[in-house]
Amino acid sequence: MSPIGLVRRLSLCPAFILRRPGGGQDPRNRNTYRQEENMSFQEEDLKNGSVRLSDDEKSVVIIDQTRLPNHLVYLTLHTPEEIYDAIKSLAVRGAPAIGICAGYSMYVLARQHQDLAYDAFHAEMKKEGEYLNSSRPTAVNLSWAIKRQMKVIEDHSAESVPDIVQAMKEDAYNIHKEDIEMCTRIAEYGLTLVKPGDGILTHCNAGPLATSKYGTSVGPVLLGKERGIDFKVFADETRPLLQGARLTSYELTKAGVDVTLICDNMASIVMKQGWVQACFVGCDRVAANGDFANKIGTSGVAILAKYYGIPFYTLGPTSTIDMSCPTGDDIKIELRDPEEIKKKWYKEPMALEETKCYNPSFDVTDHSLLTAIVTDKGIVYPPFDVNLKKLFG
Amino acid sequence: MSPIGLVRRLSLCPAFILRRPGGGQDPRNRNTYRQEENMSFQEEDLKNGSVRLSDDEKSVVIIDQTRLPNHLVYLTLHTPEEIYDAIKSLAVRGAPAIGICAGYSMYVLARQHQDLAYDAFHAEMKKEGEYLNSSRPTAVNLSWAIKRQMKVIEDHSAESVPDIVQAMKEDAYNIHKEDIEMCTRIAEYGLTLVKPGDGILTHCNAGPLATSKYGTSVGPVLLGKERGIDFKVFADETRPLLQGARLTSYELTKAGVDVTLICDNMASIVMKQGWVQACFVGCDRVAANGDFANKIGTSGVAILAKYYGIPFYTLGPTSTIDMSCPTGDDIKIELRDPEEIKKKWYKEPMALEETKCYNPSFDVTDHSLLTAIVTDKGIVYPPFDVNLKKLFG
Repeated sequence: MSPIGLVRRLSLCPAFILRRPGGGQDPRNRNTYRQEENMSFQEEDLKNGSVRLSDDEKSVVIIDQTRLPNHLVYLTLHTPEEIYDAIKSLAVRGAPAIGICAGYSMYVLARQHQDLAYDAFHAEMKKEGEYLNSSRPTAVNLSWAIKRQMKVIEDHSAESVPDIVQAMKEDAYNIHKEDIEMCTRIAEYGLTLVKPGDGILTHCNAGPLATSKYGTSVGPVLLGKERGIDFKVFADETRPLLQGARLTSYELTKAGVDVTLICDNMASIVMKQGWVQACFVGCDRVAANGDFANKIGTSGVAILAKYYGIPFYTLGPTSTIDMSCPTGDDIKIELRDPEEIKKKWYKEPMALEETKCYNPSFDVTDHSLLTAIVTDKGIVYPPFDVNLKKLFG
Repeated sequence: MSPIGLVRRLSLCPAFILRRPGGGQDPRNRNTYRQEENMSFQEEDLKNGSVRLSDDEKSVVIIDQTRLPNHLVYLTLHTPEEIYDAIKSLAVRGAPAIGICAGYSMYVLARQHQDLAYDAFHAEMKKEGEYLNSSRPTAVNLSWAIKRQMKVIEDHSAESVPDIVQAMKEDAYNIHKEDIEMCTRIAEYGLTLVKPGDGILTHCNAGPLATSKYGTSVGPVLLGKERGIDFKVFADETRPLLQGARLTSYELTKAGVDVTLICDNMASIVMKQGWVQACFVGCDRVAANGDFANKIGTSGVAILAKYYGIPFYTLGPTSTIDMSCPTGDDIKIELRDPEEIKKKWYKEPMALEETKCYNPSFDVTDHSLLTAIVTDKGIVYPPFDVNLKKLFG
């Protein structure tokens, strides 16, 4: 979808489920920030994120998110196995970043097969796409980007394979550009939901590392910062992989945002003190009824927010909404290695070898706990089953 | 209070707030386990716990709980500073264990001053008691045990100082014995609230390490185990000090209990799956209206339990109930070092040096979230303000 397409769709969306950036439906926010209706990405944003194409176009370069905050390490991925491992090990993580990585990866791999005839090329890309797709079953953006690149291959089947590969390069860049546009729009919409000085609690990491430019869940904070609007962010550390500690608090501290790191089990006392006016979290997959999968612990935060009467929002691009998935019950929850709980990061194991662990990567938050879904196409309010359909209508 | 006194008080307690062990008010539990109305402590229990008097009576010997589960290390405490540090650093932790440690400590220190005249002895003990008392402001059992030993000194003021010191020794043992009796009674009462095979979620550690013999929150599980009744326990790891991982899962694994370690943020999904029939947590201080302070994160578990319709119980000796504290708002929350969140246990820091942390040691759970308080004198149901008064009436 081109930026023009996006703007057009925006203006066609039913007004009752949308708040246009700066549209001022919430009087608290009227005139508090500059409106940027005609924003577009900067070319440099394609080079500055956590995922990019190498200058020689032979590899995908990513920031290894498992090494932060102590080491800023770039990984250069050439082979399907290297890409698979980077996704599986969470070196690249965050639904949009995985999508961008998958887009570039398909191009990088396609370059390696451009001497093949079309049928062999198609078969090879299909096989490698399926292999990459198996690295993270829950990340819908992964399969979305791979399918999109396969469609480029099929749509251009009448052309030469080198020309198809060029089209794939363009599409990989488009995936990235569209994500920047989407994150910017999400940040704009999110910013209408809070007022200067508000406390915002976030869980896991859906910042620039996980996406592009502003990120999703922290996008309103970073966009606000650019405009001189300050918030107080509380970042859950997000056990066991500590994305909140290692990534969110890192990104926000570096950006000069007032961020306080807390353990996941401190969200309740922080809310009770009255320090939180909104919860902003990302999403890995939104079902057609508004249930959504996100990092383990998200559903707990949503229940606490409900109890304390605090609005709870998930922010994500429309590519995260899976209308073919009826409810949260249909989202498969990935179980991860118990050693992540007992041993990872630690000097010594924190439990006995023989002690069992349960380590789900995600949980599903019921739509009844959700105040609204903030997308690049607008803010979707309940009833989600009806309004999500209208969003795609 | 002697064991006989305890039994007598039990029988005098108003029936409507009590369930006698095996009394069968809950038909699920009728005849499911053997009734032990006339239990009493075993002398060996005084030597096998996490806190004991050394054989030469010159020191208090404790298991250093900060070194578990990898190292079983005993610390020998002689001086006020050593005792202060052991309590402050959580080498000895858990309200009852701290009380037992304080009782023995006052005796050990008193022995060092038994050549003094009464007034000088009293002044010295008062000073050292106040010093010890400042090591953990939230632990009511600490001040309770110190006050109790000071009362022994004052009640025996007509006797020689060596005789007073002997009376303090007896009282230190009594504190320990009474705790074993109390834990056993709490375990008996708690066992009436669950049925064989139930899933029980617990937060932090209120097991034998934190108390004596059965512990409080896991007492029903351990007592059940002795009687061939099995439960499935889910232990929250309890960040940042990981008492659930390092201590609870350690104790229960060693005891042969079916225990699954989870991160704190996984309690919601575990409850949602229907795996939890009751939550059992300890308490550090219960206010007169039933609000209670316990390890950080407890209030969040209580809110989740309420949301999922799961009964939520706190288990603790009556010494934990502070009728002079009207509500939870009057409980001072201790703030601890941010480095516990960012650095403790880890190979490398998990956040930037300049990132702020908020690290409260406890939170207060509102009495409206509490199904009942399980004490050594019986199970107290709402309205707590009325029924706690009756318990002490």
